Amino acid sequence: MLTKAQVSRAQARAAEILDRAGIVITPAERANIEIADFGLGELAATGLEIVVYENNDRYCAKELILFPRQFFPEHRHPPIDARNPGKQETFRCRFGEVYLYIPGATTAQPKARVPEPYASRITVRHEIVLRPGDQYTLPPDTLHWFQAGDEGAVVSEFSSTSLDETDVFTDPSIRRV
Amino acid sequence: MLTKAQVSRAQARAAEILDRAGIVITPAERANIEIADFGLGELAATGLEIVVYENNDRYCAKELILFPRQFFPEHRHPPIDARNPGKQETFRCRFGEVYLYIPGATTAQPKARVPEPYASRITVRHEIVLRPGDQYTLPPDTLHWFQAGDEGAVVSEFSSTSLDETDVFTDPSIRRV
Repeated sequence: MLTKAQVSRAQARAAEILDRAGIVITPAERANIEIADFGLGELAATGLEIVVYENNDRYCAKELILFPRQFFPEHRHPPIDARNPGKQETFRCRFGEVYLYIPGATTAQPKARVPEPYASRITVRHEIVLRPGDQYTLPPDTLHWFQAGDEGAVVSEFSSTSLDETDVFTDPSIRRV
Repeated sequence: MLTKAQVSRAQARAAEILDRAGIVITPAERANIEIADFGLGELAATGLEIVVYENNDRYCAKELILFPRQFFPEHRHPPIDARNPGKQETFRCRFGEVYLYIPGATTAQPKARVPEPYASRITVRHEIVLRPGDQYTLPPDTLHWFQAGDEGAVVSEFSSTSLDETDVFTDPSIRRV
């Protein structure tokens, strides 16, 4: 588990990236930036920082903040019930670069550099590069993972309702919540 | 109807405001900025400029761009069917100031200055002021109208599916689509 001081430092670092991206958040949002390290304790390499703007039973909007080269492991958003085929999400890059990987033809010279030991725990390798203004909509129940470029990144996520606890990671040792 | 030249000038003006707000859009998005003037031909005073990022059967995300003091008339998003109680939307101010009016106690000294002849065609007068980082979520089927402050404004709208053609305006002479 991250210590309080580690969480606080990560929040400060995320706030600085948001600031460089020109995105304004309130002091309350600043104090509540979510730090997702999957219990791995390797946040600088593997994890994500999140500002949740709204998450209700119809839609969700967040900013995702990635430190330089921070990696988010492969996962999918499975079907929930007859009315919910799983979370659908649109990633829109606002700042920096993001390398998103989805099912499809393997990209020969990918830009991502996956931290050990996760390289062997990835199954989809079709690369989508997102730069500011670029976006990609991911269908429900689709495996994906991503990594920021050297500057870090800010990505707006627009989606159906977020139910993080239902996410399925390829690597069984990883738990989102 | 706006002429092609008028649409083009309005798109250029909206793009300039987005640029001041630090929001990057693609050339294709720039060329397709939606100009909503309700057929009134008074765009500088009454209307809205819109970049639709995504609108699918589950969620929608847009940037709303308002010229200085531009006014958007009172309307609501009515129930559609048993599964859709009407569009729910979250307005998040990114740049400038927005004065949003909803049902509730009338605000004594409102910041908005409603252009004639619309002042007499407004029924809700409870003011919410949104500055960068502020947001407000509006329940479905709730009357609302808004105006930008003196600098203009950019507002991110996160919502359930947009079905503009079903919007109900208080002023029967106004049609959204």
